[in-house]
Amino acid sequence: MILIDVVNEIKKAESVILLTHVAPDGDAIGSVTGMYKVLKKMGKDVSAFIDDQLPEMYSFVPNVDKISRPFDKKADLVLIFDCADEERLGSSKEFLDKGPITVNIDHHISNTLYAKLNYVDTNAAATAEIAYQLVKLLGIDFDEEIATSFYTAILTDTGGFTYESTTSMTHHIAGDLINNGARFREVAEKVFNSLKFNKAKLLGKALNSLTLYKDGLVSYMEILKKDFEETGTDLSHLENIVSYGRNIEGVEVAVLLVEKEGEVKVSLRSKERVDVNKIASTFGGGGHVRASGCTIEGTIEEAKEKILKEVFKELEK
Amino acid sequence: MILIDVVNEIKKAESVILLTHVAPDGDAIGSVTGMYKVLKKMGKDVSAFIDDQLPEMYSFVPNVDKISRPFDKKADLVLIFDCADEERLGSSKEFLDKGPITVNIDHHISNTLYAKLNYVDTNAAATAEIAYQLVKLLGIDFDEEIATSFYTAILTDTGGFTYESTTSMTHHIAGDLINNGARFREVAEKVFNSLKFNKAKLLGKALNSLTLYKDGLVSYMEILKKDFEETGTDLSHLENIVSYGRNIEGVEVAVLLVEKEGEVKVSLRSKERVDVNKIASTFGGGGHVRASGCTIEGTIEEAKEKILKEVFKELEK
Ligand SMILES: [Mn+2]
Ligand SMILES: [Mn+2]
Repeated sequence: MILIDVVNEIKKAESVILLTHVAPDGDAIGSVTGMYKVLKKMGKDVSAFIDDQLPEMYSFVPNVDKISRPFDKKADLVLIFDCADEERLGSSKEFLDKGPITVNIDHHISNTLYAKLNYVDTNAAATAEIAYQLVKLLGIDFDEEIATSFYTAILTDTGGFTYESTTSMTHHIAGDLINNGARFREVAEKVFNSLKFNKAKLLGKALNSLTLYKDGLVSYMEILKKDFEETGTDLSHLENIVSYGRNIEGVEVAVLLVEKEGEVKVSLRSKERVDVNKIASTFGGGGHVRASGCTIEGTIEEAKEKILKEVFKELEK
Repeated sequence: MILIDVVNEIKKAESVILLTHVAPDGDAIGSVTGMYKVLKKMGKDVSAFIDDQLPEMYSFVPNVDKISRPFDKKADLVLIFDCADEERLGSSKEFLDKGPITVNIDHHISNTLYAKLNYVDTNAAATAEIAYQLVKLLGIDFDEEIATSFYTAILTDTGGFTYESTTSMTHHIAGDLINNGARFREVAEKVFNSLKFNKAKLLGKALNSLTLYKDGLVSYMEILKKDFEETGTDLSHLENIVSYGRNIEGVEVAVLLVEKEGEVKVSLRSKERVDVNKIASTFGGGGHVRASGCTIEGTIEEAKEKILKEVFKELEK
């Protein structure tokens, strides 16, 4: 199908429901809030539903307060953004079977084409890139709010224009959104420069334990139960800490151990050549080639010995 | 003057010397190495001089090995990039008086127009944006090396497209450089994801001292002499550490104290409203409204008391 078909459905509809995936990221929230404003400008009756909590970090996104948990509602058209399969819709999945036209707009290669109309462009670095083209075709003027929503989506889904998915089109759109008033500095500040106090304290504890092995090819960090207690943190604050070990110059494999009750959570990262998925599999875990994890029973000392042994073995291959 | 005048001088010249400022940053190195390759492709005799050490972090930039310390050399044309005044040229300043045509190409508002021809565009987010236009006017094809050099310049001078100076033109150029083979993922990895082991250890020490005051409006960190000793670091490893204090959610003013012999180095950052330049001035220091520094004589305890008193006072205004 072509994007103009979606444009025609939107033009025909008087009422529209916008949906996206649970555990919403910046692309999900940015695409939905941007399209919410666009459709409002067109005079539509619009509802936006996400079957999940909205992360605090996206509370700055314009019109994020218009998104609610799904409730019973009829509409002529259901537009779904950034959602690869229907299970990821959570309870809003029920809108797929309720009669109206459903349109699935996405950029995931794994998309299961679950709607009546499916527009999936895997060359788009973010679903908001497709939404941007849609707005152009609709002939609706961008404003500061729409531009800021879509810019948030693109910035987050490309890791600040650094992921492989970034194209010249991504930059072209970003530039146009800036021209249309996207508050790009504020977005970057909120997305990249925001740190919680207790998370910073936990990072300090982790860095204190940072040790290098094998001439600096392996970095090791550990977080003990008492570190969580002393900093008032929990497992939800671990995000990104292992990257510090990975980003050390010369390091190929980074290991982060987290002490739990009777077992140890292991995070593994590699930079260029070691398959950490393989290492994690040895302990019944898994993930990707460059980012994996597993759980090892026993004390942190035992887990450390076991995991480093496997890492060293893989490194010597 | 207009850029085509520079183009004509380049076309006429058989030999060209490229210069930039001491303490070279990504824009300086990226502009010079990119232009080096362009002029080589045009068959010119090219030399590139910087009167300083090249930072290790830019060793990945293509043709960075072609840059040397200045030596006695004659050329028809001297092109100077990203250098606001002649003092910043260090000893390469002498090429200004040696007869040939000198051209100053820059984007700093403080540029003193010290050359024979001066092309200063303060709307450019990086000098490499001007160099990009120059290459277009010269009709030389970009290649992976030139594109990677200029991309490095733009990425670093815009803080990853986040500084206020970023425009739609910046994104337009970045997109075109990507199309021409700029290794943008590698550049981002080297520029943003590279951390030295002992710097990471020092960051850990600083974060251990992280404390909040005034309901979280003020963050405080300190680095003691023994922290430098234990981590094998020195004052050159402080870069960016104060940002961690600034980036804590809710913090308006971040204070970092560094213990030296008989005195204490103070770094101050603010997020939105407090003029830290004013606070630093109280102690004979200075800087900018959102980033300033000063030195206070005495022990770290004494300095802490003095600086926090001024910060609290300014905060209450
Ligand atoms: Mn997405
Ligand atoms: Mn510059």
